[in-house]
Amino acid sequence: MILFVDMDEVIADACGAFLERYNLEFNESVTLAQCHGREVWEGIPEERRDVARRYHHEDGFFRNLKPIANSQEILKALTQKYNVYIASAAMEFPNSLREKSEWLDEHFPFIHWKKRILCGDKHILKGDILIDDRSFNLDPFEGRTIMFTSPHNVNSKGHQRANNWQEVGELLL
Amino acid sequence: MILFVDMDEVIADACGAFLERYNLEFNESVTLAQCHGREVWEGIPEERRDVARRYHHEDGFFRNLKPIANSQEILKALTQKYNVYIASAAMEFPNSLREKSEWLDEHFPFIHWKKRILCGDKHILKGDILIDDRSFNLDPFEGRTIMFTSPHNVNSKGHQRANNWQEVGELLL
Repeated sequence: MILFVDMDEVIADACGAFLERYNLEFNESVTLAQCHGREVWEGIPEERRDVARRYHHEDGFFRNLKPIANSQEILKALTQKYNVYIASAAMEFPNSLREKSEWLDEHFPFIHWKKRILCGDKHILKGDILIDDRSFNLDPFEGRTIMFTSPHNVNSKGHQRANNWQEVGELLL
Repeated sequence: MILFVDMDEVIADACGAFLERYNLEFNESVTLAQCHGREVWEGIPEERRDVARRYHHEDGFFRNLKPIANSQEILKALTQKYNVYIASAAMEFPNSLREKSEWLDEHFPFIHWKKRILCGDKHILKGDILIDDRSFNLDPFEGRTIMFTSPHNVNSKGHQRANNWQEVGELLL
């Protein structure tokens, strides 16, 4: 059984790093909770969005993300039962490509390089299960889909949900 | 119709660059013809292979490859008829990831970032046609397969062949 697992907002806390960077630059204290039901950049004042949009293109941004809570141990257990691939739609950010590889080496060394996919869209993935935080990735997938809850997707419907990695474990282990 | 196209030895001349680098370092003149029916590193003396194996890990190696003859114009024409994705098993070489993205920006700007895949193995690709120089990529593919001829694969059987990009055009346009 092939299981695809997304990176940002599923195993890597990109939103958290974005807000940390933003709050530091503007001396604010926007929280993830304020981004409930919308994209993280929609939670900040419009006149500052262009500046903040830059963050994802900065060297080091993706290299220094924190792993999402419990993703490491549950994913390691999943590799015993499934053929696990990491699949990240990373091509929009060329700076992220090597950083994502190095980040996986550090935090998920049990995911062999053969099991890593950096792509543009995910319409081309052939497998059995996809865990992702985005409807536009989950909708076209032919197998079982699990939406990993993130502030931006709390109002999305149509897919089984996991609110955290313990719940992923309960669903799949 | 989704068409996947490999990079190294199909649109990017990695073997040529390898030999150029090797010949420069050792003041030799090994040619691609001498690698007929075997891997390029098998065409050089055994005691020098460890040194040469390093080349693929050097910064700049993948960024400076020459496009394979006629790949640009034929592939551009193919994008009018097919949903073309570039699919490269690049994960073994983290140094290559950003370089491959930049190389595509320069030589194949008509391939949108959404249509680029850097992966480990290609077993997870779902599509209709795969053009590749490696049996281990072509064999598990469910759709139509086209082996792009390279010195190392001249003795491989089991797949339709294109000896150059004109022949790809004849088969698919």
